[in-house]
Amino acid sequence: MKAEIVAVGTELLLGQIVNTNARFLAVECAGLGIDVYYQTVVGDNKDRLLETLKLAASRADIVICTGGLGPTQDDLTKDVLAAYIGRELIIHEPSMSKISDFFSSRGIHMVESNRRQALMLEGCDPLLNDTGMAVGVAVTYEGTHFILLPGPPKEMKPMFTNYAAAWLSSVMTDEVPLYSKMLRFAGIGESSLEHQLMDLIQDQQDPTIAPYAKEGEVAIRLTTRARDVEEGKQKLLPLEQEIRTRVGDFIYADEDLPLEHVILQLLSSKMMTLSVAESCTGGLLSDLITAVPGSSQSFLGGIICYTNLLKNKLLQVPMEVLEGDAAPGAVSEETASLLAQNLLNTTGSDWSLSVTGVAGPGESEGKPVGLVYVGLGKRGAQPQIFTLKLSGNRDMIKLRAAKSALYQLWKQLKDS
Amino acid sequence: MKAEIVAVGTELLLGQIVNTNARFLAVECAGLGIDVYYQTVVGDNKDRLLETLKLAASRADIVICTGGLGPTQDDLTKDVLAAYIGRELIIHEPSMSKISDFFSSRGIHMVESNRRQALMLEGCDPLLNDTGMAVGVAVTYEGTHFILLPGPPKEMKPMFTNYAAAWLSSVMTDEVPLYSKMLRFAGIGESSLEHQLMDLIQDQQDPTIAPYAKEGEVAIRLTTRARDVEEGKQKLLPLEQEIRTRVGDFIYADEDLPLEHVILQLLSSKMMTLSVAESCTGGLLSDLITAVPGSSQSFLGGIICYTNLLKNKLLQVPMEVLEGDAAPGAVSEETASLLAQNLLNTTGSDWSLSVTGVAGPGESEGKPVGLVYVGLGKRGAQPQIFTLKLSGNRDMIKLRAAKSALYQLWKQLKDS
Repeated sequence: MKAEIVAVGTELLLGQIVNTNARFLAVECAGLGIDVYYQTVVGDNKDRLLETLKLAASRADIVICTGGLGPTQDDLTKDVLAAYIGRELIIHEPSMSKISDFFSSRGIHMVESNRRQALMLEGCDPLLNDTGMAVGVAVTYEGTHFILLPGPPKEMKPMFTNYAAAWLSSVMTDEVPLYSKMLRFAGIGESSLEHQLMDLIQDQQDPTIAPYAKEGEVAIRLTTRARDVEEGKQKLLPLEQEIRTRVGDFIYADEDLPLEHVILQLLSSKMMTLSVAESCTGGLLSDLITAVPGSSQSFLGGIICYTNLLKNKLLQVPMEVLEGDAAPGAVSEETASLLAQNLLNTTGSDWSLSVTGVAGPGESEGKPVGLVYVGLGKRGAQPQIFTLKLSGNRDMIKLRAAKSALYQLWKQLKDS
Repeated sequence: MKAEIVAVGTELLLGQIVNTNARFLAVECAGLGIDVYYQTVVGDNKDRLLETLKLAASRADIVICTGGLGPTQDDLTKDVLAAYIGRELIIHEPSMSKISDFFSSRGIHMVESNRRQALMLEGCDPLLNDTGMAVGVAVTYEGTHFILLPGPPKEMKPMFTNYAAAWLSSVMTDEVPLYSKMLRFAGIGESSLEHQLMDLIQDQQDPTIAPYAKEGEVAIRLTTRARDVEEGKQKLLPLEQEIRTRVGDFIYADEDLPLEHVILQLLSSKMMTLSVAESCTGGLLSDLITAVPGSSQSFLGGIICYTNLLKNKLLQVPMEVLEGDAAPGAVSEETASLLAQNLLNTTGSDWSLSVTGVAGPGESEGKPVGLVYVGLGKRGAQPQIFTLKLSGNRDMIKLRAAKSALYQLWKQLKDS
């Protein structure tokens, strides 16, 4: 089936927020085997919203709207759809009770406009809102299936996943669903990966193969249509094997997990611990690691030795190494090595990572923007040092340096 | 004038990338006084792209397209526009020379498809690409102004800023441009801010007032139309003064800067330094601070004391405080206070921030998710402790805790 995703909200047209809802719904639709042909953004305007719904209905089997279900007079989506398909708006009593309870439990007077969030269209299927007030709507009119979801992602996503997806599946009885698999890569750039898979990408039919960059890493999604998981796996297998033959050394996961997640799994399975010494990444490496729930099992913490003072004071890098005309300097193999080595003693961890470099925008110590040294320490061994020459702005260099450090650790861990 | 933003690319429809181009262009259009009424996303399909351009031309004065200018057979935007408005595609010689030079300087054989990136429409205005190959297009047809830009943001943004914006201004001679001002807030939530400004938001006409959440903070944009900056300032002044009367204590900047940027400016102007001790924020606070270029002038670094071991070993929090049935525990006022105090001695900074709490998803030490203690240390004074009860998922709690810590420091700094 063909779908159109319609996002309603003047804040999108003004660029105040990014339309991440469209991306989420696009991915979910692909997973359900629904082809999205158009995405549209329209403001909080009755006439233009009506025109948009009419147009979408004329060219899609499924129209998924987000936004405009809130309590204010600007929230028009239900009113406009009701007018379009000639249904009354009625109160959804379970949602109304929930809203009343919310206000009374907090001792706040409920104003009339809050009742609007409990409205639904007569004869439609309500979509429950587990994380907010506004009830969603699912209804079929003249062969087009309409889904109305709230705008805030924290309400929209669970409503889609928990209720709308099942409703859509129930109306799509003849479709063969898509089956897809994500391969995630580390230690290889997007262009290099695409170059090595160029013929596969250009000649793709079924399965499809889609490379893309993601949070400083590279991933590939393989997709086909299959009645069940087993059939899907079998249909993807030859292509996946061909990819593994060419670039398998860089594949760290065959599911959608960031590199730090996989590293924490490896550390945990080996009962080993990690600490980090960050200069140019300035806390980002730790932040990535601690974004993973349960990271405290293997990650001890670390030191943000942003200044030479702290490199010396907290990690015993001699000032003669850090400063002076003949010194290697803070951005050097020597410093990366001493940071990684001394950190092991300071924190008592089994592994250590150090990162020191020039994130920019200006050069430092006469060294160019993008030059970064990564130190990888292991208890009982000499630290290994890796020299990186990264491109991009300050944020990108920080991210690429952090991901490169994680990649070196992953390579050691998987083989040890 | 009315504009429509059209993003071309199947990767958007599949949700492989987020449409950040639309957001960038929406903001730029607002700045030029152009009203965006619709945003559309369409795939790499000739028929649907043509329909999309026709529809956009029928309802907008300006149609800005991104994507589909590359070398492959999927890159159709120029071909489709040329067919639609009846123009030939011709080679833009300066772009062709640049492409040839690129390939010959690298000793790579140029394939025929690369010539496609130098194509433009006969009689159109070329838009130069300072950061890539594909030349852009600006052309007026039957009263509609078309702009074709490349898809990659690093090519699209400079082409718009450096060339397309001036071209648009040249065709919009009668428009009064928009003038807007951003007020950024800390220490107040979005709903509380909106509640205190409710009547101003609901009754807005000119200037308009738009509140929105941004990177864990809250901001308000005031906008009017004005011939010049002075007129703009004068037109915004009464509304800005009313807002300042009500919630001025929470305004930390009247330009679009994150809180950490303003704090670094204050520290630098006072010649003072900062270090941080992070437990539950796990490096995020340092990462936010070091995202600001030049932060090393005032930010010394810090310690990610993610485990009790490091709280004890590196920051001398006694194990009796951290562990044991009767102990306050790692998530406590006592620990936050000791971290902030001892960090001053360890790093020698003038100010210190400590953060310890429960980021979730599970509780810790029997304490609930979202409970966070912030310690603010100042050389020669007792640390101040702030207790936070935050909501949201793990990422949001980390971000809100980091921003709350920064807010407490900012309050002290601005008055000291």
